Amino acid sequence: MAATRAKTKRAAQGFTWEGVEVLAYKAEGAAPFKDVTRQVLFEDPHLAAQWRYFEVAPGGHTTLERHQHVHAVMVIRGRGACLVGDEVYTIEPHDLISVPPLTWHQFRATEREPLGFLCLVNAERDRPELPGPQDLQALRQNPRVAAFIRV
Amino acid sequence: MAATRAKTKRAAQGFTWEGVEVLAYKAEGAAPFKDVTRQVLFEDPHLAAQWRYFEVAPGGHTTLERHQHVHAVMVIRGRGACLVGDEVYTIEPHDLISVPPLTWHQFRATEREPLGFLCLVNAERDRPELPGPQDLQALRQNPRVAAFIRV
Repeated sequence: MAATRAKTKRAAQGFTWEGVEVLAYKAEGAAPFKDVTRQVLFEDPHLAAQWRYFEVAPGGHTTLERHQHVHAVMVIRGRGACLVGDEVYTIEPHDLISVPPLTWHQFRATEREPLGFLCLVNAERDRPELPGPQDLQALRQNPRVAAFIRV
Repeated sequence: MAATRAKTKRAAQGFTWEGVEVLAYKAEGAAPFKDVTRQVLFEDPHLAAQWRYFEVAPGGHTTLERHQHVHAVMVIRGRGACLVGDEVYTIEPHDLISVPPLTWHQFRATEREPLGFLCLVNAERDRPELPGPQDLQALRQNPRVAAFIRV
């Protein structure tokens, strides 16, 4: 149906887009997370990547996870912080974040405002892995990481 | 050198990023364009796509071209217009634009402000094709397209 697909999807109110559904981040209970939505902005058989927009509500967080595939992220709304490996970064609009292969990562909004970010992944990719008790113990060796993560 | 590569590239003034070079859009004389810069935000051997930011200065325009690979575009600065196929669209921040395979396209800023957009392409992709006289004749059948294109 490529020929009849709309060429534009207009930006609408509050970081939504015409013709783009606001989805659950993940199936409820599949993994620990809090107050996150997902919108798939571009997905196309001709495109080797999927381009998504995630929004974390104030006080919310994504899943602490890792996987072989990488993330390329740009913040476009609000402020927050993220863990990538053993570093915690404060992040704000237009900051770019790279998540390398098999690197633990998690995004958190502040308590005051949502955190919205674009996230690029390969169309073909592996499933995320959740941390086990030994992974968490290793992560918590670093006090800053221990204070940051939500599981 | 993935292990030592910085995990973040901070947004800097005026839609630039720390550690990201502002490049010429194309080699001068390679194709017709006016006042466009290019920044490669993400390029990674693990990523099947390249994520770029293009900025068209007031009154400027990208090259009128087509290719087999597709573009996924999000405007993040200013306003302008684009041709995709035989339609001209006015575009503004956060609008999404899909350019299907082998579809003529061109982006223009207004006379008053720069137009900045994110553009995703497959890492492996074909080279753009420029319009020949017959292509231009066909495009100019549509008066709105004829008035829009710059070659």
